[in-house]
Amino acid sequence: MKYFDDIEVGARREFGAYEVTKSEIVEFAEKYDPQPFHLDEEAAKESMFGELIASGWQTAAICMRLSVEHITDVATLGGLGVDSLRWHTPLRPGDTLRVETAVVDKRPSERRDDRGYVTRHVEGLTDDDTRIISYDGIEIVARETED
Amino acid sequence: MKYFDDIEVGARREFGAYEVTKSEIVEFAEKYDPQPFHLDEEAAKESMFGELIASGWQTAAICMRLSVEHITDVATLGGLGVDSLRWHTPLRPGDTLRVETAVVDKRPSERRDDRGYVTRHVEGLTDDDTRIISYDGIEIVARETED
Repeated sequence: MKYFDDIEVGARREFGAYEVTKSEIVEFAEKYDPQPFHLDEEAAKESMFGELIASGWQTAAICMRLSVEHITDVATLGGLGVDSLRWHTPLRPGDTLRVETAVVDKRPSERRDDRGYVTRHVEGLTDDDTRIISYDGIEIVARETED
Repeated sequence: MKYFDDIEVGARREFGAYEVTKSEIVEFAEKYDPQPFHLDEEAAKESMFGELIASGWQTAAICMRLSVEHITDVATLGGLGVDSLRWHTPLRPGDTLRVETAVVDKRPSERRDDRGYVTRHVEGLTDDDTRIISYDGIEIVARETED
């Protein structure tokens, strides 16, 4: 298991992929983002996007799913937040999302000596390397204690 | 309908609420964030949080749902991204989330005269005013054209 002090700034990982279906896009949208261009193909044709696309929040959630599945050796305690999230290109039914990630910053907690904060830059890309989403996720990671 | 030029920096809105259930928390986690403290009450007791909590991405998605439901008079074309998202306090089964939001910035697109960007600060709070999540969401909003 990797603790805060084991994590190196610059470390990179690539993993995935996750294929998103039309029914999953509509199901997420009905519950969390009921805008016409996430719900209905005909309505989506009239939108800026011209076709049915996934909610940006679903795209972020899929990156989270891939991260939880593949980054299993880090003593993560939870998430602190996210900076600079951008939706570059819409995710469409049938697209397959994969993740490229790099540790870009780490700092120990000033108040608690049992944890630190690790910032990971995340890029969500399709098969053909189209950039769908990017963000900097800040995780709370445990420090190894000496008992 | 409010277009880009109709939107005033400083304008505030409050709406909600959305009650989150245990089954909805587990269902979201199974699909998008399968960490033990989102999936299982017993496992959650061993975590930093001490109890079952919602995925932070679900918390953000609930704020999106409330925003789509209640901000129906703005000519939004889609989302550009999110800055400074922070998870302050976990959302738990039975909690009710409401939203307070304020327009904090707007700027016309430099490349397209038919749209601009509006930044809205969003706070997700429970009934007892516990701050759960905050972020700055950047929306693409249409400008009224003269045809």
